Amino acid sequence: MVRNVLFIMADQLRWDYLGCAGHPRLRTPNIDALAARGVRFTQAFVQGPVCGASRMSTYTGRYVSSHGSMWNFVPLSVGQKTLGAHLRPHGVRCAVVGKTHVEADLEGARRLALNTAKGEGLLAMEGGFEPFERDDGIWPPGFKVEGNRYCDYLRARGHGGDNPWHEHANSALGDDGELLSGWEMRWAGRPARVPAQDSETPYMTRRAMDFIAEQGERPWVLHLSYIKPHWPYVAPAPYHAMYGADDVLPAQRSEAEREDEHPVVQGFRQTEPSRSFSREEVRSTVIPTYMGLITQIDDELGRLFDFLRERGLDRETLIVFTSDHGDYLGDHWLGEKELFHDTIVKVPLIVVDPRAEADATRGTVCDELVESIDLVPTFLDALGLPGAPEWLEGRSLQPLLHGQAEAAPREAVFSENSYAFRDEVRLPSGQPVDACQMTMVRTRRWKYIDYQGLPPQLFDLAQDPGELEDLGRSEAHAGVRAEMAARLFAWLRARKRFPTIRHEDIEQWNRREVKAGIQIGHW
Amino acid sequence: MVRNVLFIMADQLRWDYLGCAGHPRLRTPNIDALAARGVRFTQAFVQGPVCGASRMSTYTGRYVSSHGSMWNFVPLSVGQKTLGAHLRPHGVRCAVVGKTHVEADLEGARRLALNTAKGEGLLAMEGGFEPFERDDGIWPPGFKVEGNRYCDYLRARGHGGDNPWHEHANSALGDDGELLSGWEMRWAGRPARVPAQDSETPYMTRRAMDFIAEQGERPWVLHLSYIKPHWPYVAPAPYHAMYGADDVLPAQRSEAEREDEHPVVQGFRQTEPSRSFSREEVRSTVIPTYMGLITQIDDELGRLFDFLRERGLDRETLIVFTSDHGDYLGDHWLGEKELFHDTIVKVPLIVVDPRAEADATRGTVCDELVESIDLVPTFLDALGLPGAPEWLEGRSLQPLLHGQAEAAPREAVFSENSYAFRDEVRLPSGQPVDACQMTMVRTRRWKYIDYQGLPPQLFDLAQDPGELEDLGRSEAHAGVRAEMAARLFAWLRARKRFPTIRHEDIEQWNRREVKAGIQIGHW
Repeated sequence: MVRNVLFIMADQLRWDYLGCAGHPRLRTPNIDALAARGVRFTQAFVQGPVCGASRMSTYTGRYVSSHGSMWNFVPLSVGQKTLGAHLRPHGVRCAVVGKTHVEADLEGARRLALNTAKGEGLLAMEGGFEPFERDDGIWPPGFKVEGNRYCDYLRARGHGGDNPWHEHANSALGDDGELLSGWEMRWAGRPARVPAQDSETPYMTRRAMDFIAEQGERPWVLHLSYIKPHWPYVAPAPYHAMYGADDVLPAQRSEAEREDEHPVVQGFRQTEPSRSFSREEVRSTVIPTYMGLITQIDDELGRLFDFLRERGLDRETLIVFTSDHGDYLGDHWLGEKELFHDTIVKVPLIVVDPRAEADATRGTVCDELVESIDLVPTFLDALGLPGAPEWLEGRSLQPLLHGQAEAAPREAVFSENSYAFRDEVRLPSGQPVDACQMTMVRTRRWKYIDYQGLPPQLFDLAQDPGELEDLGRSEAHAGVRAEMAARLFAWLRARKRFPTIRHEDIEQWNRREVKAGIQIGHW
Repeated sequence: MVRNVLFIMADQLRWDYLGCAGHPRLRTPNIDALAARGVRFTQAFVQGPVCGASRMSTYTGRYVSSHGSMWNFVPLSVGQKTLGAHLRPHGVRCAVVGKTHVEADLEGARRLALNTAKGEGLLAMEGGFEPFERDDGIWPPGFKVEGNRYCDYLRARGHGGDNPWHEHANSALGDDGELLSGWEMRWAGRPARVPAQDSETPYMTRRAMDFIAEQGERPWVLHLSYIKPHWPYVAPAPYHAMYGADDVLPAQRSEAEREDEHPVVQGFRQTEPSRSFSREEVRSTVIPTYMGLITQIDDELGRLFDFLRERGLDRETLIVFTSDHGDYLGDHWLGEKELFHDTIVKVPLIVVDPRAEADATRGTVCDELVESIDLVPTFLDALGLPGAPEWLEGRSLQPLLHGQAEAAPREAVFSENSYAFRDEVRLPSGQPVDACQMTMVRTRRWKYIDYQGLPPQLFDLAQDPGELEDLGRSEAHAGVRAEMAARLFAWLRARKRFPTIRHEDIEQWNRREVKAGIQIGHW
């Protein structure tokens, strides 16, 4: 029986930066052991290539076009229904420790005069997660942080100041004792100014244990959401020096790619992260620290899994490990994220189902196309709760976890973003802010990216798995593009735009009307 | 200056059932005089061919796919922003007298723990209209009506009983004093059991006057929303006998049309209203009463316009007269509504702008394609209030009212419906309830109707203005269909799915980020 769900997310963790996913240098023994106890999905895709949009899809079980939070810091409408709202009426506590990137819909709250300080109003502002320890991190230099529990913890541990997150946990010290800000990537090789136990990953892991201990026998869904290995790329000792330049794999890119004419890709190549990560010096400095941060997460997960085992909770808890998107790290001459190469939109996904029905699949990999919107339906299914097909656009992974063949395997995955927020990209494109949508349709063979008012991109993943040759304007591929555009249309038309009525209420309508005595057109 | 908006809607009033629209027998002198003072739009289309979906579009300024209330009785999400919500922060009172067909999103209200008994919670349940006299009518026989002001009024006037709406205002008496229910169309020629002054249209008109008098000098937007000439087709004397069978125009239909193979149209032809209205006996009995109800509205509007003039309010009030959709009345062998013939989706629309800038267009007709979603932007524009381009999908009619040429006239109008609620249509189609969407794209020349999983329909309005020949499967028209499908796709992709962030906030984003000290990818 599944009573609880431990839903772990790392931020900006690439699909290929795990030992079990084949990285030849990176050590992630605890995550690898998790994969050995469950199913590792090799073709799992997020619905948006930035934190906010991706997470809102994961938390609502809906595509970005359906929940409307199209990018970071775009409020999640009070009209949307989240994982927590699906769970809570059934007595399942749903909380977060760490980052959600949910932006409160304050305008919606004002319109409805919600009390956002408590109860349902607060939950609506938190994307449905009880903020047991909500912490999105990212406090810029000079910002005086108040009311943040982790910063208060750092102060109590002697790491004081206005912004201990920045000045201690995410900065280093220079040879003369000067502050070397983690916002400058050149210092990525230096250790953080805090001991490992005071850094974010162990702190959040302990808070997750606090929650689980507090909850006792009552059922829970906990979203443990690590801020790392997301930038600032700063790791505490010993993780800062665990890997070196020799451990860095070559960037996945070609010179020919640089000639790519697509204006949006070109625009992103002009941004500072892309220019920085196109330099080997940056890669060989930053990537070892990125790897160290991953191994630190792995170590902490080892502790957490021990904690569950000691309490027998591993036998009744569904465990999920995933990420919200990847990190270019110089692949394709790009830094950060925002576009649709597999580097970004393919993510690690491991699911351990404790039930006997899942024994046959333990330690296997699953190559079916799956999406992060599948998680909410999977959680509801595992907990024995009703689905909500009027809202949920994903599909439960349970058949795959239980080794059952799917009647109709998914043929394509979808991911969306907008470049409206990036002046370097939007201004040269000449597009208005509400016509900067990018939509990826990816089958096993083809990846098609539609841009409003601009040419599409197309990649042949069979011939060109590295996605180095854009066939978006190749005459020979006009037919493929038309077929992919048709898929996009069919998908767009099928979005769940009408979630305020249940399917069974629609089916009952005729009978309800007759029963009520309404006789339209009766002579 | 425009201080107020009087937004009048009739229910189920066809575009061609007005004297000024060319009906040779129907008398509507007051509405005709209104048209002489303003602009009459000859190509105005509603966004849905049923009350609920159409009205939610009119009240939100958004297409059905964007507001999500796809049919009657589908709740309007608490996440949507309505006319009233756009007005209220600017101190403009927004109220309704009569019908809105807004279905409260009670599930959303529970999720947010809204107090729906008052304040913003109540307004959210009322589609943003203060319910000065909300009354959707339609009380089935046997229903005991309590707490309805109009029914209480009828009782106070001596028209008592459990359901005086049905038993008096919408029924007649037989020769032996027996009740002849208005739900049975055979009695349409009999007078209602109430004198004209106690019927719905005059009552609601007086309530509108009450509101306007109460409001005094303070600005207002009043939605005066008549329930008639919507069924039950019952009129009080003398309107019940004002027109006769000789005044009934022939049905717009052909025998060939009956051979139409389209399964959805076929399904609707099997419904009781279609079967009834295909009979001449029904048409010649019902249509005179339908016409009488329209002349009654016209008489009452004459009183209301006098009331405004006496108070000088006509000089500062924008007046709109429109409808939510038509009524087949046997055209195309159909009854009721739900499909996309111009009989249904084209509506009357008259706008009187009191400002001098509109003097040049008074008494003119405008043949531009306009939509009912244009009304909210028109109201905001007239009142000098900011638009909300992140929400509103229509465009202000003000340039047309002021005789200014539009930079880019609208090329197509759109209307949507679902046949999921109609067993007679859905069950034979084999489609699941969430794949029954119908979408009309109509240019000046072509009308294309897309059905999920079924063949489309196509009409050539230049060659076949009566819409009698479906070219949906004509080989010669494959190119036209492809072009119309491409329009549909472009439209679908351009829907405003991201309304929780303002466009100017997107434009400012890069600068905000830099200003906050966030330096991503800096070496």
